[in-house]
Amino acid sequence: MGVVVSLDGERDKRPSLDELHALIADDLKAVNEEIVNRMQSPVALIPQLASHIVAAGGKRLRPMLTLASSKLCGYEGGNRHVTLATCVEFIHTATLLHDDVVDESELRRGMQSANAIFGNKASVLVGDFLFSRSFELMVEDGSLRVLKILSRASSVIAEGEVLQLMTTNDTETGETQYLEVIKSKTAQLFAAACRIGAVVAERPNVEEDALEAFGMNLGIVFQLIDDVLDYRADQAKLGKTVGDDFREGKITLPVILAFRRGTEEERTFWRRCLEDLEQDDSDLEHAIELMNKHNALTDSVDRARHYGAIARDALGIFDDCAEKRALLNLIDFCIQRAH
Amino acid sequence: MGVVVSLDGERDKRPSLDELHALIADDLKAVNEEIVNRMQSPVALIPQLASHIVAAGGKRLRPMLTLASSKLCGYEGGNRHVTLATCVEFIHTATLLHDDVVDESELRRGMQSANAIFGNKASVLVGDFLFSRSFELMVEDGSLRVLKILSRASSVIAEGEVLQLMTTNDTETGETQYLEVIKSKTAQLFAAACRIGAVVAERPNVEEDALEAFGMNLGIVFQLIDDVLDYRADQAKLGKTVGDDFREGKITLPVILAFRRGTEEERTFWRRCLEDLEQDDSDLEHAIELMNKHNALTDSVDRARHYGAIARDALGIFDDCAEKRALLNLIDFCIQRAH
Repeated sequence: MGVVVSLDGERDKRPSLDELHALIADDLKAVNEEIVNRMQSPVALIPQLASHIVAAGGKRLRPMLTLASSKLCGYEGGNRHVTLATCVEFIHTATLLHDDVVDESELRRGMQSANAIFGNKASVLVGDFLFSRSFELMVEDGSLRVLKILSRASSVIAEGEVLQLMTTNDTETGETQYLEVIKSKTAQLFAAACRIGAVVAERPNVEEDALEAFGMNLGIVFQLIDDVLDYRADQAKLGKTVGDDFREGKITLPVILAFRRGTEEERTFWRRCLEDLEQDDSDLEHAIELMNKHNALTDSVDRARHYGAIARDALGIFDDCAEKRALLNLIDFCIQRAH
Repeated sequence: MGVVVSLDGERDKRPSLDELHALIADDLKAVNEEIVNRMQSPVALIPQLASHIVAAGGKRLRPMLTLASSKLCGYEGGNRHVTLATCVEFIHTATLLHDDVVDESELRRGMQSANAIFGNKASVLVGDFLFSRSFELMVEDGSLRVLKILSRASSVIAEGEVLQLMTTNDTETGETQYLEVIKSKTAQLFAAACRIGAVVAERPNVEEDALEAFGMNLGIVFQLIDDVLDYRADQAKLGKTVGDDFREGKITLPVILAFRRGTEEERTFWRRCLEDLEQDDSDLEHAIELMNKHNALTDSVDRARHYGAIARDALGIFDDCAEKRALLNLIDFCIQRAH
């Protein structure tokens, strides 16, 4: 496909993850080592499959949040932030593996999944292993507060994923429900990852709450932009395929805005493509045209900016420091991905 | 299919679960209520799907083990045994849901799964929810010891399931490896369920260990007999289908014994049926004939009796009481299912 839509020329002063990376480089290296150490098992297929997805080189955004938050809260002298950042990444990896499970109905449409190599069953079971291992690590760490935060986050993520399943192919889905989905399936783990940073540093509740609010709103930004990118990523540059959500009939904000602002004829188009999943080669392009006609992509980015502003203010209680600047910079990084 | 093989005439004095039921009736009722209460979610599909499997009326064997073990250890005055028995059942239910996930390759063979109603994806996600909810409940209970036991059990179960996946369709699988699989995927949760009973009663380590050993060996008995029943259940009576393992190419002990004791011609038969999964209507019957020829089913039951004897001796340190008798009776109940 490779549909590229570039909206402005702000390509020069792009925020990056470099600043944040530099601040937590050693810890992140320790997390990567811990990830490899802790996904070992006498059952060979487990590290084999796990390393396939873990080593696939994600951005490690969530563990970075735990590391940076703990540093922002002045945590030092221990290794708990590394252990718990590993837990966060394991939970994330488990949800990725389970997310890729192909439904029977999808298979009938002849679609291929990311887990095509290992099969549904192995993906599910290795996900379960990483998930359980994550809780084993938390128990080793020994904090019931952390266990509470991450067990709650895990339940909410599962709820969000089920809710998303229920809204898929349903063009009646509204923005409120969409927000509920992305808060649960994505932002909750960002929020938990940040909160844990304050917990290990044994900071007062107000700082835990501030970091949680930051993480929650950053997570919303991240998912909103991810959903925008599904309609306008520079495929070659981001290594991200355009149109996956469209082909699956996922109802994301760009769709919701275009649908609600569209004519009756346009809604018939959306229903055919996303509810009936009757699509031909030109439909994705037409969908993007409709989105542009109704400013659905630019307005989705605007919505993201709104949550970004809330995330920014959430960190207001912290004094200026390199960690705070790096976290604030992360908001801009997430938003700028859309351009 | 409905192939019935009755080996002896011990139909009179059959052990039952009645004795155990009577001892823990109130607590089990409380567990059933807790199960329903705690699987609630604002996301309607979750309780809907969960109740489908939870209400399907399993034997509640694992939560019964926690309840009976806690009573054997003299636990009273609290509700922790009920909460933790619920955790155990949630973990079991989650693994059932994940166990039913259909692999892509299986689908190509046109097989139907137990989760055909809701689809792979919903089964995985609701399993994840129950699993997470189980940890939330443990955190509420507040015991790091229990969290350690059950997070470890969960990892081992996942390892066992993956190991089983790797031995499926492999007729070279030996009895040792088979035992490793059933210890991990089944017996580990029986062991944990029992051990927790001693933990809530705050009994010395030696009692925890004894109950764990009892549960582990009882779990091996249970799975061995389950695997025998897959070749000789009285379908009408047990509501269990004969031949599922055969059709999937699962390598269970009856197969291992028949294969190892068989002629080269017989081994060719086993390889065609279980490795290549080329089966016709008469093959299951022939498989059972070969098993009977080599005493593979009766000897599998004998192996089960061996582990039953170990389970029995494990409880030797406890004084005689109604709970102990009920647990010992459970061993006989599990073995007698084969007849």
